[in-house]
Amino acid sequence: MNSKIGIGGQHLLLDLKACDAALLDDCKMVQSLLEQVAQQVGATIVKSVIHQFEPQGVSGVVVIQESHLSIHTWPECGFASFDFYSCADDIDLNQSISLLCSAFSGKVHRAEIIDRRLAVGQTLETL
Amino acid sequence: MNSKIGIGGQHLLLDLKACDAALLDDCKMVQSLLEQVAQQVGATIVKSVIHQFEPQGVSGVVVIQESHLSIHTWPECGFASFDFYSCADDIDLNQSISLLCSAFSGKVHRAEIIDRRLAVGQTLETL
Repeated sequence: MNSKIGIGGQHLLLDLKACDAALLDDCKMVQSLLEQVAQQVGATIVKSVIHQFEPQGVSGVVVIQESHLSIHTWPECGFASFDFYSCADDIDLNQSISLLCSAFSGKVHRAEIIDRRLAVGQTLETL
Repeated sequence: MNSKIGIGGQHLLLDLKACDAALLDDCKMVQSLLEQVAQQVGATIVKSVIHQFEPQGVSGVVVIQESHLSIHTWPECGFASFDFYSCADDIDLNQSISLLCSAFSGKVHRAEIIDRRLAVGQTLETL
């Protein structure tokens, strides 16, 4: 890990609505999109998994050097829950919001970035 | 998916401190633990991935029928970030907190459950 990787990280929780149902149910497209998002924000992909549910819906996770991205989709109502946990300070999580909205032709229902980083100087002894 | 699975879900963000460093760096143990947690709360495992970092640290994700569990560990300071996203109302996320604390001999640094479920009756039209 590089020097910009800390202890804990920032966690984006993003729920999208009004997305294209066919895209939300296309597991190859969803996996490719997760990997593209990871690459475009500068993350390093370690492992990528995808699962197609029946009759519909996709779950995908990409483990990155800097933590993970995940998505769960509900094509039947145009809804998707995405999260991106990153322990690298040089990754801009906001960039992934526009990438996902654009790819799914969707809108933001809810977006929140939760700071789970330990403060500088916090150690095992001070926790 | 069964009738207790809704649109969106509840998301537990759990940060643990003062954990056993050797356990946090044992990727087989961490993967087994994630799978045990999933099974003990009644989730159905779909896929499980684990990655060992050098010189230390583990990232693991278990995709479940009901969404996912993930963990990232920092053995060097006894710290771990866990999250559990579940779209099944009959899964008790709080149960996983005690299971993880016990397994890692750790303490809760931060725990929060964020409700990302759509309200009953919310549909594509009302979003």
